[in-house]
Amino acid sequence: MPRYRIDIEYDGQGYAGWQRQADLPSIQGAIEQAILAFSGESVTIRGAGRTDAGVHATAQVAHFDLPRDYAIEKVQGALNAHLKMAGDRVAILSATRVPDDFDARFSAKSRHYLYSILNRRAPAALMRGNVWHVPRPLDAEAMHEAAQRLLGKHDFTTFRSVQCQAASSEKTLDQLDVVRNGDLVEVHASARSFLHNQVRSMVGSLKRVGEGAWSPDDLEAALKAADRSRCGQVAPPDGLYLTGVDY
Amino acid sequence: MPRYRIDIEYDGQGYAGWQRQADLPSIQGAIEQAILAFSGESVTIRGAGRTDAGVHATAQVAHFDLPRDYAIEKVQGALNAHLKMAGDRVAILSATRVPDDFDARFSAKSRHYLYSILNRRAPAALMRGNVWHVPRPLDAEAMHEAAQRLLGKHDFTTFRSVQCQAASSEKTLDQLDVVRNGDLVEVHASARSFLHNQVRSMVGSLKRVGEGAWSPDDLEAALKAADRSRCGQVAPPDGLYLTGVDY
Repeated sequence: MPRYRIDIEYDGQGYAGWQRQADLPSIQGAIEQAILAFSGESVTIRGAGRTDAGVHATAQVAHFDLPRDYAIEKVQGALNAHLKMAGDRVAILSATRVPDDFDARFSAKSRHYLYSILNRRAPAALMRGNVWHVPRPLDAEAMHEAAQRLLGKHDFTTFRSVQCQAASSEKTLDQLDVVRNGDLVEVHASARSFLHNQVRSMVGSLKRVGEGAWSPDDLEAALKAADRSRCGQVAPPDGLYLTGVDY
Repeated sequence: MPRYRIDIEYDGQGYAGWQRQADLPSIQGAIEQAILAFSGESVTIRGAGRTDAGVHATAQVAHFDLPRDYAIEKVQGALNAHLKMAGDRVAILSATRVPDDFDARFSAKSRHYLYSILNRRAPAALMRGNVWHVPRPLDAEAMHEAAQRLLGKHDFTTFRSVQCQAASSEKTLDQLDVVRNGDLVEVHASARSFLHNQVRSMVGSLKRVGEGAWSPDDLEAALKAADRSRCGQVAPPDGLYLTGVDY
């Protein structure tokens, strides 16, 4: 059966997350509905990252199989038309044919996330639901410096949701850059894979560094303790974006 | 009476526009409600630009008078708290005390607008309601070149809404730059003041240039005709932002 890859943008507000759920709107469910509407096929799509409720994507990747060989433009156009008609804030950026051994989740070599903090007194109006509003001034350079202590292979238990189902709490973090861009403080994180809530847990702890409450040493000690209770606040989903997947 | 200036960000979706209306939500009405809630005073605020339904602002300016002399941080904080409570997508970026002769509308020397076009096949998901989606490729350089023909003092009747109430159709356009930024084509327009729908009318006509349907000469001929029927499509409000006012 022909296998298709789709690259997807979505606004996570109002969705229970990527994964299909019985009675709640989900990104996966919305796309599967659109595939059913255009092809008549009930398929299960697999995404590279199972984003949580309220988390966004500028470039999520998923794959699925269909019995027929459709023109790629038709797949993109038909899915976007159906998603729009259903009122979903989900757009198919591209559709491509891929080999049978391509798996959006298991073939992924690296995942990239952006976490966006609006750091000003005034709350978000235009970006409401799409940033974390932190009114107190953050020292982005101190956050960046501290973030480098988390790079490499570690037991990330401190930065892992208690609901995380991964077999191991060991992960290798390849990038954790913090840059200020006007009123925005942006955290760029890259790794082969992440634990559940790992990026939001790291960002919430980095915020403590940015406020001056934690030193880089405090952050490193929290990591080394491998103790969930040592984590700072878990940052809200609003500011998190899956921005790319490498294969 | 002490006069206050506020700088305002808002998402125009769901509002009938800046101006207060009896039975519809408006930006002016939302802010006047917030002022009433914190001060007990029913005031009329005056904005620099009376943006239409669905038009946004990153930096609208307004002024109002209150009988009491409040600490400025309190004005900003209280207004934002009340706006948030009311569920308004309106944020007060700053509040300042200004001299009695400051008038947000009549003291303005220059107004700046951004018009944002999402130019890709896929519709907007994250930016829905905040951009104009134009799926066909646009030549931003051709648009910029043609836009320069509109600079200076002209009769802008072609680019003026039939509902425009300005006494004269003559305006001086100081800037009309078109730049591509990835999938976004951004139009930056500056003038002392604009006619009703002038930016959206110019952008809709520039789109025709970007598609190759109009040459720069066609755009100039449309301007010189001073004939509303020669205008291209009026671009939707979604992509328009009031981005600054100079005094």
